[in-house]
Amino acid sequence: MSALAKLFQPASVAVIGASADPSKTAGRPVAYLRKHGYKGQILPVNPKVSQIDGLPCYADVKSLPCVPDVGIVLLGAERAHLAVRELAEKGCAAAIVLASGYTETGAEGDRRQQQLLQAAGAMRLLGPNTIGLVNLTASIVLSPSGALEMDHFPTGAIGVVSQSGGILGALLSRAAARGIGLSALVSTSNEVDLELSDFISHLADDPATKVISLYIETVRHPQKFRAACLKAAAAGKPVVAFKVGRSEAGARAAVSHTGAMAGSDRMYDALFDQTGVIRAQSFSDLLDIPAALVTGRKLRGQRVAILTSTGGAGTLVSDSLGMANFATPAPNSSTADALRALQTGDHAALDRNPIDVTLAGLQPELLRGAIKALLASPSYDALVVIAGSSSLAMPELMAGAIQDCLPLSDKPVLAFVSPHAPHVAAVLTQRGVPAFASPESCTAALQGLWRASQWHVPKNREQAGMAVVLTDLPSGSLNETQAKALFTRFGVPCTRERIVSNASEAETAARELGDRVVLKILSADITHKSDVGGVALNITPERVGERLQKMQQEVLAKSGVLSAQFLVQEMVGEGVELILGLRRDVLGTAILLGMGGVSAELLQDTVLRLLPEHGGLSHDEALTMARSLKIWPLLNGYRGRPKADVEALAQTIVAFSQMAAQLGERVLEAEINPVFVLPQGQGVRAADGVLVLA
Amino acid sequence: MSALAKLFQPASVAVIGASADPSKTAGRPVAYLRKHGYKGQILPVNPKVSQIDGLPCYADVKSLPCVPDVGIVLLGAERAHLAVRELAEKGCAAAIVLASGYTETGAEGDRRQQQLLQAAGAMRLLGPNTIGLVNLTASIVLSPSGALEMDHFPTGAIGVVSQSGGILGALLSRAAARGIGLSALVSTSNEVDLELSDFISHLADDPATKVISLYIETVRHPQKFRAACLKAAAAGKPVVAFKVGRSEAGARAAVSHTGAMAGSDRMYDALFDQTGVIRAQSFSDLLDIPAALVTGRKLRGQRVAILTSTGGAGTLVSDSLGMANFATPAPNSSTADALRALQTGDHAALDRNPIDVTLAGLQPELLRGAIKALLASPSYDALVVIAGSSSLAMPELMAGAIQDCLPLSDKPVLAFVSPHAPHVAAVLTQRGVPAFASPESCTAALQGLWRASQWHVPKNREQAGMAVVLTDLPSGSLNETQAKALFTRFGVPCTRERIVSNASEAETAARELGDRVVLKILSADITHKSDVGGVALNITPERVGERLQKMQQEVLAKSGVLSAQFLVQEMVGEGVELILGLRRDVLGTAILLGMGGVSAELLQDTVLRLLPEHGGLSHDEALTMARSLKIWPLLNGYRGRPKADVEALAQTIVAFSQMAAQLGERVLEAEINPVFVLPQGQGVRAADGVLVLA
Repeated sequence: MSALAKLFQPASVAVIGASADPSKTAGRPVAYLRKHGYKGQILPVNPKVSQIDGLPCYADVKSLPCVPDVGIVLLGAERAHLAVRELAEKGCAAAIVLASGYTETGAEGDRRQQQLLQAAGAMRLLGPNTIGLVNLTASIVLSPSGALEMDHFPTGAIGVVSQSGGILGALLSRAAARGIGLSALVSTSNEVDLELSDFISHLADDPATKVISLYIETVRHPQKFRAACLKAAAAGKPVVAFKVGRSEAGARAAVSHTGAMAGSDRMYDALFDQTGVIRAQSFSDLLDIPAALVTGRKLRGQRVAILTSTGGAGTLVSDSLGMANFATPAPNSSTADALRALQTGDHAALDRNPIDVTLAGLQPELLRGAIKALLASPSYDALVVIAGSSSLAMPELMAGAIQDCLPLSDKPVLAFVSPHAPHVAAVLTQRGVPAFASPESCTAALQGLWRASQWHVPKNREQAGMAVVLTDLPSGSLNETQAKALFTRFGVPCTRERIVSNASEAETAARELGDRVVLKILSADITHKSDVGGVALNITPERVGERLQKMQQEVLAKSGVLSAQFLVQEMVGEGVELILGLRRDVLGTAILLGMGGVSAELLQDTVLRLLPEHGGLSHDEALTMARSLKIWPLLNGYRGRPKADVEALAQTIVAFSQMAAQLGERVLEAEINPVFVLPQGQGVRAADGVLVLA
Repeated sequence: MSALAKLFQPASVAVIGASADPSKTAGRPVAYLRKHGYKGQILPVNPKVSQIDGLPCYADVKSLPCVPDVGIVLLGAERAHLAVRELAEKGCAAAIVLASGYTETGAEGDRRQQQLLQAAGAMRLLGPNTIGLVNLTASIVLSPSGALEMDHFPTGAIGVVSQSGGILGALLSRAAARGIGLSALVSTSNEVDLELSDFISHLADDPATKVISLYIETVRHPQKFRAACLKAAAAGKPVVAFKVGRSEAGARAAVSHTGAMAGSDRMYDALFDQTGVIRAQSFSDLLDIPAALVTGRKLRGQRVAILTSTGGAGTLVSDSLGMANFATPAPNSSTADALRALQTGDHAALDRNPIDVTLAGLQPELLRGAIKALLASPSYDALVVIAGSSSLAMPELMAGAIQDCLPLSDKPVLAFVSPHAPHVAAVLTQRGVPAFASPESCTAALQGLWRASQWHVPKNREQAGMAVVLTDLPSGSLNETQAKALFTRFGVPCTRERIVSNASEAETAARELGDRVVLKILSADITHKSDVGGVALNITPERVGERLQKMQQEVLAKSGVLSAQFLVQEMVGEGVELILGLRRDVLGTAILLGMGGVSAELLQDTVLRLLPEHGGLSHDEALTMARSLKIWPLLNGYRGRPKADVEALAQTIVAFSQMAAQLGERVLEAEINPVFVLPQGQGVRAADGVLVLA
């Protein structure tokens, strides 16, 4: 049995610093273990007390009569490492350290945290600054959280891992009130040893867990995280994550809270996207989406039937679904016939969607019939049932009627509860019909189901064997020509150009390059050339000399730099202007593709994709990036324009990514801006580039 | 006393079709009136019953012993109009018709609805298809809604008007559970007579109402709606609206539900924006935002202090606030000193924000001290207090401590309740501290406060007296030259150009217009010239003739049209490319300003502004439009570029809007695309235009 397995299912638990007073924090772990019927051995340790609630209490860890599987350390940060060392020496598998006062408090805390890690040696450590762990499936509580005061836990198949202890408690109480069942709860907090990915990986193997829900402040080990999420995906267990630190203020708060350094939020989007993690957009989504996923029902399309007994709420749900690109088509004629056969009366609108069965709430037979017809209908991929005021009095009636129909199909069935009726929602959820109090949550849950059904674990890609010999790599900020020379070696096609230093050289070069050229200063120091007047487009060979002299003066006036060298470049007039670049932070290195042009930064039409651990992006990934831009239609024959050379673009993205992968930590900055994508068959041209090497 | 006033406070109520069985829908109005202690006269009408709950019951309306102020008609659609006619003849002020089966069901329903209106004559009508009206302030219930089954209504100062009866019930039950108090509830539904705007206007005058909350499916009378909202704004009463029909599916559902024809959602954005209406983005915002506004507290800036006893929830709120551009700065040194003086202990983070006072939930004195310090601090404009698990046991303690501090400042104080604890939230809200169960709701409430504080009733604008004599107005689709001629008469500066019909004329014209010109086909039939190869830019005079011939062939091949006329136009190379156009639907006529260029439709950087009832937009409104574009920085000296001639742009927008206003219904389509905004002092140039006149 692994240490992690013992942490979830210990045969014995030592509680270091246990108090005999169950109302105190230090008294709760023993009290909770007993209250929830823990069958293993409880070993309280406290030199000042001889017994706790009838259990013998030991003076220190050494005196314990056996080797505990798990030690809960309730001591403060000043003494916790001593207990940890003793537990490690005793041979304990894992310790949980609750004290705060570590990395989250600054340099002195950093030192303490390292001391703690050293004290643990080979023993695994959860924390510090954690609220602990609860195995709800086996009713084992290893935590003093006041949130665990409840008599019965909501057990089920959602495993929750949170980097905040307080949030863990909030999620537990919210799940209990909603009728949402959990398999395990873990608070990882400072993660000096065991961290997010360890628990994702454990829960991926845990037969009691079907869905994994994460509250994330930072991902400390991105490659491990990717592997763990892909493992969960391979096991058919969706992972849902809510991540704070989306805004600068939130990132600052998260850092001061756990002492972590987080990456940029756009990089997290890429990370989640590439690992199949469903990102919860609001805090409530973190329970709402898993509540839908845990039913195991499959969403195969985006057409939703809405069955309602109250018109307004039907409209509300339909509107919210429509905003998320779900369709709510009218039933086909055979479905409408089946519905009409159920009810007489002239006011029921049975050929529309929402399907309005005014009396459904009161007549279970009618409800059952309508649900059967809609689940069997080829018009729909999912069903949302609306509980109106009529369901308030007898929620069991409605829940029972829906539940009876669930085995007839594996299409998702969700409920929206229109009035304030938490008891109705809880009953429905417990019966296998995840119920929501807001139309937006219902939509978010369906979006989660859709994302889960659409994402597939990527196949192992062959790594193109491109390896460029780089014995002569320069250092520092390269000028445009140097940068392009390197891009070219990796297979990025660049514009033709000549370096010139005076007017007559410029004219000669221009005549070679065509009837229109671009003139630029050539400087490794000035990266934003156009900001200082250092770029002129569309110049004729006759005028290029005169323009060079003017440019030299303007750049001198604006930047103080007297440019000695200039580039004369072929003018690429046609084509779609893009940016191809690189972003790097603690999550890894990502390739960025975006709309180019002067308004690029204002309109932010960009996509990021993280590089794998080794090598560059695949051709498919490169195509996916291009297709996810808002301006993709411009590349794809928009309004009679010629189709752009998307194949060449994809090859260029792959080449650029391979360069980034091969240069690794040596690239500090790399960007091609703009890269022109010409019409099909004509390739792409990198027209300008920045490269800074370490 | 007006009919509307009588509807809210009737001295007598006739209930037509009342049942003696209070469990039936038709039995509820009488039962509810009595249960909530209605002091006026209740007059049940039902020929089959002699008395209801001790009240004499009348055989018909004619037999009533007095003229009722209000009649509630519980009969079906087949007979309701008969009762309405009798009530009108009797002299009743207003009738409420609950039956469905009218416009929402199709043509036959349309006919019935007209019949109903005729039957009412001068009597005012609420409905049909309404669930009625509740005056919570006076405990008067004119409704059979099952949602009113509760013993005590949550009374307060939020007036709710809903176009859906079911939603009205949902809002009432949700408000009651949340501790949010209401002054009145009205369901307007089919709005054959009394409609949304009538009630907004009434509530603007109602001393018991401070905030107006609207659930909207459609605005049937946009000018009346604008006037009513501006009246509410002038009375200092914010209006919050949730509108369905944002998505196509929702719009369809809303239409089939109430039989209304709604305008485009972007036009609603403009309507709400121009009338100060705060748009609720989610259904829950429709109570959350009013709950914050009704406190009357003022948000003067966007800096928020977060006081928490649980780190994770502080991060959650801070992150959500940051996403909405709120700042959560650290306290200044004097505030930090004041906080430090309150608490000893080394773990409290008092020089950061969120301000983490670990024991605050348990120590009211500490909480009181911290709140005082933060309310007094010059670092903050608002305060969010987080209720963690420690507040669960004694919510009164926390609520009381906060409440004590409220009189010390008029800065907004809100609460986020982290665990599931609806009782804590309700207690806080009732004590004047609006409390939210999700960080996103808390943020939405602050956004609502911010919007309310930033918006001001627009001053009466002088209407520029521009009136162009238009005796010679053409009809149908104008060609580019005709369109620009008309734009020019209204003061829109257009590019210089010549009409030509062959190569040599083109060359002559080009030489007059500069060294680079634009060549286009001139045709009233082809509006998307570039889609058929009918536009060529940047042509030299030497090449224009040859290009004309090529263009003629290409257009013929692509569109089947042999173009006989061409335009040679000055080439506007510099400048920011925009679109200036017009949109019209049931909400009115709006001027559209947007980013131009080939990717304009893909990137959708546009702003709409509705014309006033008479005349065009003001110069200020035109400037506001330009400033709200994402690409505004391009006009404003972005990255060393010259500032654009924004004044000339604003004048052009005003001129275009005056043209739209003066031409009125005669304009079917009008668009200038592109209009180039040149550097400061150089004006703008309309380079192409479409105009279709009736």
